[in-house]
Amino acid sequence: METEAHAPPTGTVREETGRGRSGPTREQLGAWRSFLRAHATITKVLESELVAEQDLSLAAYDVLVQLAEAPDRRRRMTELADAVLLSRSGVTRLVDRLERAGLVTRSPVANDGRGVAAELTRAGLGRLRTASRTHLRGIGTHFAARLHEDDLGALERISRRLAE
Amino acid sequence: METEAHAPPTGTVREETGRGRSGPTREQLGAWRSFLRAHATITKVLESELVAEQDLSLAAYDVLVQLAEAPDRRRRMTELADAVLLSRSGVTRLVDRLERAGLVTRSPVANDGRGVAAELTRAGLGRLRTASRTHLRGIGTHFAARLHEDDLGALERISRRLAE
Repeated sequence: METEAHAPPTGTVREETGRGRSGPTREQLGAWRSFLRAHATITKVLESELVAEQDLSLAAYDVLVQLAEAPDRRRRMTELADAVLLSRSGVTRLVDRLERAGLVTRSPVANDGRGVAAELTRAGLGRLRTASRTHLRGIGTHFAARLHEDDLGALERISRRLAE
Repeated sequence: METEAHAPPTGTVREETGRGRSGPTREQLGAWRSFLRAHATITKVLESELVAEQDLSLAAYDVLVQLAEAPDRRRRMTELADAVLLSRSGVTRLVDRLERAGLVTRSPVANDGRGVAAELTRAGLGRLRTASRTHLRGIGTHFAARLHEDDLGALERISRRLAE
């Protein structure tokens, strides 16, 4: 596209940075990559602990939490997909599996011909509470314990800016 | 499990925090959730821009970058899966698709009966370079532009601690 098509084909993408008119600087890209790496490292270990000890994926845990915290422990599927930041098809498949496991039920939304809501079952709440011991211990060990108190406040503040 | 099975079944998971012996405090859990939210918010918008403008998922982009930066633009599939933080089956499916699109080729690793490596093609490099304009612009807009210079340094430092 545009005027950079003549750039040498042997250059790597890393070398490309800093040339663009609105691209990040090397420092900015470095911070971005470190941020990604931190997220990936922690979620990977949390996922592996949750699967090993509780036979539950992190995405499934997230769905159960989002339902547990909703009024009547029930959410429209479309809202649920936004809350857990999965695609609509991803959350449909996941809720299918949770429904087969008896942790969630699905029912129509009153006065909405096409709306469907997912609701946490009593078994689902129990499963979540058991699983939360593994997950919260993991957050303590792999996230909180690595941060000084100052870092915790800074990370909270910076994360809020990024999510605005 | 253990002694908390008698806890009231109506309590939400959020209310559970702080009770556990090694679980995070409310502040720590809040910072963790903000961190997750920041990551999800930014990657969601970067993904949607990349798909809309370049017809490429963020995971596919990540695979192409990891190959572009490797010696000879080639990596073992197992190393690639670690580098991009996808599961082994996830990276296999993704490389299948990239191979069909002519962006990657796969070949055996010399002197390793079972090893397979993925290599970036010239077309793949071109595609990556074009796509990087969208992606780097997005990192500039949705990540770097929201941070003060101090924040950038703090986030880099904190992220490194978290990924250790």
